Amino acid sequence: MSDSMKNRRSIRKYTAQDIPDTLLNELLEVAARASNTGNMQLYSVVVTRDKANKEKLSPLHFNQPMITGAPVVLTFCADANRFVKWAEQRKAEPGFDNMQTFIASTIDAMLFAQSFCDAAEEKGLGICYLGTTAYNADKIIEALSLPHLVVPIVTVTVGYPAEPLPEQVERLPLSAVVHQEAYVDYTPASIDAFYKEKENLEVNKQYVTINNKETLAQVFTDIRYTKKNNEYFSEVLMKVLKDQGFIKD
Amino acid sequence: MSDSMKNRRSIRKYTAQDIPDTLLNELLEVAARASNTGNMQLYSVVVTRDKANKEKLSPLHFNQPMITGAPVVLTFCADANRFVKWAEQRKAEPGFDNMQTFIASTIDAMLFAQSFCDAAEEKGLGICYLGTTAYNADKIIEALSLPHLVVPIVTVTVGYPAEPLPEQVERLPLSAVVHQEAYVDYTPASIDAFYKEKENLEVNKQYVTINNKETLAQVFTDIRYTKKNNEYFSEVLMKVLKDQGFIKD
Repeated sequence: MSDSMKNRRSIRKYTAQDIPDTLLNELLEVAARASNTGNMQLYSVVVTRDKANKEKLSPLHFNQPMITGAPVVLTFCADANRFVKWAEQRKAEPGFDNMQTFIASTIDAMLFAQSFCDAAEEKGLGICYLGTTAYNADKIIEALSLPHLVVPIVTVTVGYPAEPLPEQVERLPLSAVVHQEAYVDYTPASIDAFYKEKENLEVNKQYVTINNKETLAQVFTDIRYTKKNNEYFSEVLMKVLKDQGFIKD
Repeated sequence: MSDSMKNRRSIRKYTAQDIPDTLLNELLEVAARASNTGNMQLYSVVVTRDKANKEKLSPLHFNQPMITGAPVVLTFCADANRFVKWAEQRKAEPGFDNMQTFIASTIDAMLFAQSFCDAAEEKGLGICYLGTTAYNADKIIEALSLPHLVVPIVTVTVGYPAEPLPEQVERLPLSAVVHQEAYVDYTPASIDAFYKEKENLEVNKQYVTINNKETLAQVFTDIRYTKKNNEYFSEVLMKVLKDQGFIKD
């Protein structure tokens, strides 16, 4: 197994070294070998290298410093537009303005994105995913001129990792996410067992203290992923899916 | 760049060789190193090895022979259930019953799935994605006993590739899927240019002839991904998202 996968961690700070176009294209070419729905390739990626364009994107990702700090910013999009334009030009009648096509396109975009990341890390590059893309999809659509049937799903910043590398973060025990033959629902006892190590980590305990909370879970629900924000940004996303043509009113 | 990524192709026929649990777990362990939303790991995977269980899943994937032919079938799921159960047990108030959480969970599930596939192929295994999972999500939920806030997204069959290996299938030119700085929408001329090679491939021409169609695009819209099916299965999926708790009525 490649060490780059075993040892991976998200990289949020990059050196000044640029990524040559030849390398970036080689990585994207390999990434495009990933599986996709019926070989329709229902995805696109927008490459941002221009400083002014990064500054335009930055607030749409809540000013996370990776956007302006990385040599390359990639916005991976679910894209049924290209396929539909081709079909219409070839006397075919596409029925791609629906939720299944949105999910298929999202799957295609993610397999393409993750293959890119696995390949990039193997080449010594560092990456960071920004999940903020789906939050501000409406504004990103405007910034990148995305047409009908195109929705941005994730953003990945890429560059050479600056030293020192961050610590690798913890994961739940494998048995917490793997079910044999059928899903075995969690019990109070299994939840306690699976989350024990995570909750006992010094860094997570500090996280609770700094945020003045009683439990680690409260840091997530009260601060990082609040019900209020989740619901607000869900409304934005549903409106985006309607505006971009994947859901009907 | 690893040759396994460059040379990859979906593998639909497998040898009789089994995949030991130690190898499968090693691959899943590495896959869990992939990025995920806020380290919440909003995913689960159900492993199917049992013959009777594969036979139960097979019709839900329209009897594609990979399900019963592969030693291991993996159903990757968007899963907010575990996190929500943990939060509720820790005096936190999760607001995860919404569309943003569904998309975040889908992203998490796909990064986990694709990392698994990249690692598996590096070890000489062959994989095939089945996009049928989102079509029959309701029946798969029943077959695998998936609870509230869990939705199956993709299924991957895994095994050692049977000889002869299939040909590697074509992809659009890289420039068809990559946009520099902003999305440049497709024109009749650029569509012609980007799809020319694909349409001129002997295998695709035969595909048109065999199906009695005028264009390759018609094979997709009239046979493989019809408007009628896409709309029917979109309704199923929207109902699933409501039933599983990610969308409100």
